[in-house]
Amino acid sequence: MLNRTYPGQACSIARALEVVGERWTLLILRDTYRGTRRFDDLQASLGVTRGVLASRLSRLVEEGLLERRPYQANPARFEYIPTAKGRELWPVLMHLLLWGDRYYPAPNGPPQVAEHTGCGGRLTPQLTCDQCGRQLGPGDVTLRPPAKQARSRRAAQLL
Amino acid sequence: MLNRTYPGQACSIARALEVVGERWTLLILRDTYRGTRRFDDLQASLGVTRGVLASRLSRLVEEGLLERRPYQANPARFEYIPTAKGRELWPVLMHLLLWGDRYYPAPNGPPQVAEHTGCGGRLTPQLTCDQCGRQLGPGDVTLRPPAKQARSRRAAQLL
Repeated sequence: MLNRTYPGQACSIARALEVVGERWTLLILRDTYRGTRRFDDLQASLGVTRGVLASRLSRLVEEGLLERRPYQANPARFEYIPTAKGRELWPVLMHLLLWGDRYYPAPNGPPQVAEHTGCGGRLTPQLTCDQCGRQLGPGDVTLRPPAKQARSRRAAQLL
Repeated sequence: MLNRTYPGQACSIARALEVVGERWTLLILRDTYRGTRRFDDLQASLGVTRGVLASRLSRLVEEGLLERRPYQANPARFEYIPTAKGRELWPVLMHLLLWGDRYYPAPNGPPQVAEHTGCGGRLTPQLTCDQCGRQLGPGDVTLRPPAKQARSRRAAQLL
């Protein structure tokens, strides 16, 4: 049984943070959204210790945010797929991304741009596309350098 | 100098969590949005130790999310007002609230309802009002028990 992180707090924000407020948890979810779903890949992407990663993944499976599915039988290997409950935290991550891009841009250049994949519009604070107006969700958004550097085409799909 | 929480992570989500991912930080912001802005009031609301609260407030002031303003001269007393940068995290908190309400409702009854203050519409996942369609922001939303218990009128303004 874990200690409560926010004893005495009845609000739903505090209850949500009990589940996803632990160090690394939101970054694990981010990676599973963009398709990094196997233990070794997550470990390489995050650079977190295997013990911490295993503990966070167990918690996320237990709470129903990730589903653990076998992808190999011998030896048994599993991948972690975001459930509907897990995917519903996507807006939290995107608002953290928009805010981080705005106030904590990368040190060696301008912030990346969250772009509607295949359309080229930008993600708005309403989580719509500013070109086609579509409501965006996990899998619809790619991170790109802004226009000036777009020629390098080193776009990394993020979420 | 604090240790980095997410070494090796270049993404803006990780940078945002370096600033607001510490325990209690988002709940302090929540309280300042709803008008709880003095040290003793924050301490009473959160039940956190004074040392942790002081440390989190210093960090939030240093990073420009809160402004420290004197409200009394002798002895000197200060309150903490969210800046534009601090207010722009409101969507993160509201999405945590909507998600927590949905998946972790309060143990003794249904979750509270995030309502557009003075209008009665509900907060949508696009952070608009489902009645008047207005885009909502900090100060526009009140937490209420859902309709069945609305007669008690123990609405607590949350954000």
